[in-house]
Amino acid sequence: MSATPSLPAAKVIHVDTRGAIILSEESPETRDSRGIYLPNYIEPVSHIAVDVGGSLAKVVYFTRSPDPPSSPSVIATQGSNGSTSSLSPPRSHSPSDDGTGGVFTPSGHPTSKQSGALTPLVLEGGPSALANGLLHDSLMRRTAAAAAVQHFPGGSLNFERFETDDIHACVAFIQALIERSAQVNGVPLDEMRRGVKIMATGGGAHRFYELFSGALHVDVRREDEMECLIEGLKFITLIPDEVYFFSDELIQSVSHPTPSIPPAVPAAWTKPAPDGAAHLPLPPLLERPSPDPPKYGVTFESNPTPQLPCLLVNIGSGVSIIKVDEDGAFERVSGTSLGGGTLWGLLSLLTPATTFDGECAWVYLHTGRPLTWYFLRVRVWRTEMLAFSECGDNSTVDMLVGDIYGQDYSKLGLKSTMIASTFGKVFKKGGEKGKFSAEDISKSLLYAMSNNIGQIAYMNAEKYNLDRIYFGGCFIRGHAATIATLSYAIRFWSKGTKRALFLRHEGFLGAIGAWIRNIEPSPDVLDADS
Amino acid sequence: MSATPSLPAAKVIHVDTRGAIILSEESPETRDSRGIYLPNYIEPVSHIAVDVGGSLAKVVYFTRSPDPPSSPSVIATQGSNGSTSSLSPPRSHSPSDDGTGGVFTPSGHPTSKQSGALTPLVLEGGPSALANGLLHDSLMRRTAAAAAVQHFPGGSLNFERFETDDIHACVAFIQALIERSAQVNGVPLDEMRRGVKIMATGGGAHRFYELFSGALHVDVRREDEMECLIEGLKFITLIPDEVYFFSDELIQSVSHPTPSIPPAVPAAWTKPAPDGAAHLPLPPLLERPSPDPPKYGVTFESNPTPQLPCLLVNIGSGVSIIKVDEDGAFERVSGTSLGGGTLWGLLSLLTPATTFDGECAWVYLHTGRPLTWYFLRVRVWRTEMLAFSECGDNSTVDMLVGDIYGQDYSKLGLKSTMIASTFGKVFKKGGEKGKFSAEDISKSLLYAMSNNIGQIAYMNAEKYNLDRIYFGGCFIRGHAATIATLSYAIRFWSKGTKRALFLRHEGFLGAIGAWIRNIEPSPDVLDADS
Repeated sequence: MSATPSLPAAKVIHVDTRGAIILSEESPETRDSRGIYLPNYIEPVSHIAVDVGGSLAKVVYFTRSPDPPSSPSVIATQGSNGSTSSLSPPRSHSPSDDGTGGVFTPSGHPTSKQSGALTPLVLEGGPSALANGLLHDSLMRRTAAAAAVQHFPGGSLNFERFETDDIHACVAFIQALIERSAQVNGVPLDEMRRGVKIMATGGGAHRFYELFSGALHVDVRREDEMECLIEGLKFITLIPDEVYFFSDELIQSVSHPTPSIPPAVPAAWTKPAPDGAAHLPLPPLLERPSPDPPKYGVTFESNPTPQLPCLLVNIGSGVSIIKVDEDGAFERVSGTSLGGGTLWGLLSLLTPATTFDGECAWVYLHTGRPLTWYFLRVRVWRTEMLAFSECGDNSTVDMLVGDIYGQDYSKLGLKSTMIASTFGKVFKKGGEKGKFSAEDISKSLLYAMSNNIGQIAYMNAEKYNLDRIYFGGCFIRGHAATIATLSYAIRFWSKGTKRALFLRHEGFLGAIGAWIRNIEPSPDVLDADS
Repeated sequence: MSATPSLPAAKVIHVDTRGAIILSEESPETRDSRGIYLPNYIEPVSHIAVDVGGSLAKVVYFTRSPDPPSSPSVIATQGSNGSTSSLSPPRSHSPSDDGTGGVFTPSGHPTSKQSGALTPLVLEGGPSALANGLLHDSLMRRTAAAAAVQHFPGGSLNFERFETDDIHACVAFIQALIERSAQVNGVPLDEMRRGVKIMATGGGAHRFYELFSGALHVDVRREDEMECLIEGLKFITLIPDEVYFFSDELIQSVSHPTPSIPPAVPAAWTKPAPDGAAHLPLPPLLERPSPDPPKYGVTFESNPTPQLPCLLVNIGSGVSIIKVDEDGAFERVSGTSLGGGTLWGLLSLLTPATTFDGECAWVYLHTGRPLTWYFLRVRVWRTEMLAFSECGDNSTVDMLVGDIYGQDYSKLGLKSTMIASTFGKVFKKGGEKGKFSAEDISKSLLYAMSNNIGQIAYMNAEKYNLDRIYFGGCFIRGHAATIATLSYAIRFWSKGTKRALFLRHEGFLGAIGAWIRNIEPSPDVLDADS
């Protein structure tokens, strides 16, 4: 039996990402929390990573599933010509829903009940098996005994979200996950717990440390938030089709939608000639197809190359701006308090909206038939803040350059359609409170927050000579207008020299980073000789 | 008769500012529109400058007054130890109010009825007098004829504000000024008009050009907004006591007020000793006075030195950021749509406030006893948006670093009291709309806008290596919390290497620049030989 090779230090990401594919989402609401199938990976110890921010707690964990899912990411991304109103394809594949709350279960596998659970290597006959160098043997062994744990490479990274204000729901979820995994693997709960570690990061890692360790009876380790963010970024950008961006044409069509203008059709085409004869003029010349046609689809990075150095702009309740050097060293260089929390807070007071786009993390805690009903309920909620903004016209509340100057201020390169003053038309002397629609207000404030973040991000990218700007955090949610505005701001200020890049798992960078930060064998394995 | 010396080109400011003094304000509402007495100046042609912005139209004009006012700026500024809640001293001197709507009239002067009017040199017997080189003679001539115009050096720059939405009030005011000046000088209206020019700038110079020329029957000249802003800045910074700033101690005491903590008084000091005897411990040691005591007063630049190069941040409805080189060349390098209009708009919808701090420009159009009533009415309005913010506690609506981390995030230099997310506590999942006070909302948003402007201003100052940052525009209005926040932001981001500077006539830079831009004699004078 050969010795287990010593694993490199934690700084190196050594999760085997070969062949990684992003799964199809289960619903548009979970577009940013799709599972990632890693066919070659197997966990030594199960890490459940929790990143507790100001508003949301993000959870990442790995469950084993022996067969690749039947929804590879080529379906998930729909190439580069997907619809622009949402990044989600229609539901072309739904996991069989056995009501076990978010457990991925491909249909048809003989041992399917053993899939979708935490299945760390340490469960293979306990720690002594590892210490005796039985690691490789265990990978090969399949026993008939139902109680034997079976380890195969391959499984999925799973992503969940909870409200920080409802942290107990998050704790309950993890508790249920551990208990279910013990059952699935046929091991006592105590042994299961020994094979699990909680990696906690974000501000709440400190606030809720006692809660997590007291309730879950597992090791809880606190990890620095910024370090986890960067580790998560470095990891996730290795996954094919994770990173995406809007082309210039797409930015333009989303930011400044113009009705498509067909070539002018002469009146004669719509009426017959007076003499009834078919004297029709020649049809107008159609433009030749260009060798470089406009790209209106979202562009995914299918073959990701190393992405450093870069700037990471993490937009949560507030915004952190972190520069990352080529060697991975990083520094939080800036930030702004005008973030997602600001927009949500303002819109909750200024419009009838009660949710951002529909929260559905709690769906997974319930089982059985009501699940269907909850999906429907969430869909209604989606016609809220973000949906409002899609229909709005900000020029009723914003003062544009044209309103002040009557025209462009071309000497300064300011077009008449540019926003001179956000909400500049709202205040009227004399106390007359205008009536402004929720749609217009939502659009104005979405533009304002996004433009401001884009401007501050650009200035930092310029200061540190960085061309790649990644946007992370739970603010964006694949919303086309937000992405277009951020992209446009970066393009405008940089005159096209810098690029805004987006991540499908944008809100989970910290959790992913916490998850991978300490992937190393137990000291027993490192010390073993054989 | 010596030839009139040829005057230099318009780019040079040749308004004689020797001995300039800022007059005491008439009321706290007009703290940023106090007259400036220029004892050595006399206008060849009366320029009335109008800067029409998105929300406000600012007017500047010069009226002759032979004697210096009895309210020199040493009263106006109260040295460097004035109260910090407002920059205005108590009303120690009020001009005699003869109900002629804003005409400055020092009491007791024998020719007082000829003061406070537009009195351009061209009125001295008409253009031919100038052409004949009678300019100097006319300065000496005092005729007994009541109709003779008397020219003496010395008079005041006057400042007025109107709502752009009510531009007709502005036009009416100027009309009245011209007509009254014709009467005071005893010349026909036509001749008066020939001695007047309107210099129009701002966006509205284009929008309202026809209105001004059609209604007023005088030359209207349009001037570029940015050029006027910079000319105005260069001029106004020459006036003693115009520029001011907050010391570090003052910033701290306004931004982070702490109740003064006297040295701990032992309990024994408050009760007699049990045996009734006067056995009192020694009083606590008082701190020695420092050789460099904290400066809690506003610091005025009494002896202004050349102020270029610098960054000018003009905060109106929106914000323009202009860099000015040492030689006066300038470029608008940045801006943001999150400006005064944004704050006023948000507060008008989120709070019961109906005004910013009380508008009173229109007071001057009315005469007689109602004037008193209008002052009172305006004073009530001042308990509005800005006053709300003074009483507020932003931590009920803002998410602070401490709320997320439970403590400082000292690794990143983020104190627990810093704002992580503006309005971050407002949005509650489930649609429960919180109740937040107008005071807390006002403070939060005032901080948010000011901090954001300060941050963007700092980044541009750093980019262009400029240490002096001037804040202009009608947003600040001498409000201590706004000034302290802007000053703190600059100090925080620059680690104390850059300074935020403020202007008492902050909203009038463009109008002042328009006023002085074309001060040159008529071509007749330049051509005259004698």
